Amino acid sequence: MHINQAERDALYKVIYSRRDVRKDFLSTPINDDVIQRILAAAHHAPSVGFSQPWDFILVSKEQTKQAIKQGYQAASEESAKLFADDKRETYQSFKLEGILEAPLGICVTCDRERNGPVVIGRTIKPEMDLYSTVCAIQNMWLAARAENLGLGWVSIIHDEVLRSALNIPERLEIIGYLCIGYVSGFEDKPELEQFGWLERENLSQLVHHEQWSDKTK
Amino acid sequence: MHINQAERDALYKVIYSRRDVRKDFLSTPINDDVIQRILAAAHHAPSVGFSQPWDFILVSKEQTKQAIKQGYQAASEESAKLFADDKRETYQSFKLEGILEAPLGICVTCDRERNGPVVIGRTIKPEMDLYSTVCAIQNMWLAARAENLGLGWVSIIHDEVLRSALNIPERLEIIGYLCIGYVSGFEDKPELEQFGWLERENLSQLVHHEQWSDKTK
Repeated sequence: MHINQAERDALYKVIYSRRDVRKDFLSTPINDDVIQRILAAAHHAPSVGFSQPWDFILVSKEQTKQAIKQGYQAASEESAKLFADDKRETYQSFKLEGILEAPLGICVTCDRERNGPVVIGRTIKPEMDLYSTVCAIQNMWLAARAENLGLGWVSIIHDEVLRSALNIPERLEIIGYLCIGYVSGFEDKPELEQFGWLERENLSQLVHHEQWSDKTK
Repeated sequence: MHINQAERDALYKVIYSRRDVRKDFLSTPINDDVIQRILAAAHHAPSVGFSQPWDFILVSKEQTKQAIKQGYQAASEESAKLFADDKRETYQSFKLEGILEAPLGICVTCDRERNGPVVIGRTIKPEMDLYSTVCAIQNMWLAARAENLGLGWVSIIHDEVLRSALNIPERLEIIGYLCIGYVSGFEDKPELEQFGWLERENLSQLVHHEQWSDKTK
């Protein structure tokens, strides 16, 4: 099946306009068919040995979101202490999640026993099933963007909070909690770049030929 | 920036027609501008705290590929022993890599010290930088597909083989080795599904509402 120029350009448009959304969520409901399409896109990610180790827990109840938000707040206060004094205030000024504002939360897990115990391609590198699940998240992220939905990955939260709030058994590894919703707009650039926290790296510095080389020299 | 229906359909076409390619590579060279586009797509993946922890090592020399291929063969023999007797022969009949046939190999690494030591969003979940690098690989995989290039992820190889062949310092985590090239065609379905090794899971069994629930009951 051939991908033509217009289709290729569309993929690049989606990739370049995708953002990690935290502050621009609208409360507009998301239709079920749209949710099904982004889940199906995730389910068609590559998975090691075709193990398809992912599960998706959809969260829309206010009470559940409140429990998760509290977990975020505690973890964020704990995190703030790790930053150097001159960075801490800036860190605390960032809005880093939209747990309550986004109409939909999706927790993505990895079942390390699914289709095992011996999985093709995971025999030498056992973390491959976790990486497959991340591929599913990235597919979902791009599908959400193509549906004009914002998505933000909340990583400042302890697994135990999600495990308890969402009844997740110990057997499942928690990979990410995603907030999804329509947005007032998509930023032109990542916020941390806009705010001068960090610059985009020069790609040519990250590309090596035949062997890795120390480019700082 | 709005994504329209045609653009959305194009993304889904790329997602659904992407394959993990092992046996259909052609030796046709890949133009530099195409390689640059897929690397730039990878570089525009989300990264925790905008840390952009990835490096890309491009491999095209026969001698380097031979060293990697030998590493694969040893790891594959080691892996075969892990399969149950009734599965081993089938496992050994699969072609699981295209290291020598694909004109381009790309090793993707994660620099866990880049833009650190304290990275926003990695304070509680330290593996987030590894996951960011996997998002870059998935962006690259879709970009390659949109350029009508096949890509296969070789995970049956010990890190030390790649580290030695590609001069990768201990500081960098090796995430994946990818084989890339034009192909004689893209399979309709994943090969492990075609060959009856495993079936595609029913998505509805993987989706939970508000709380994880045991669907095997």
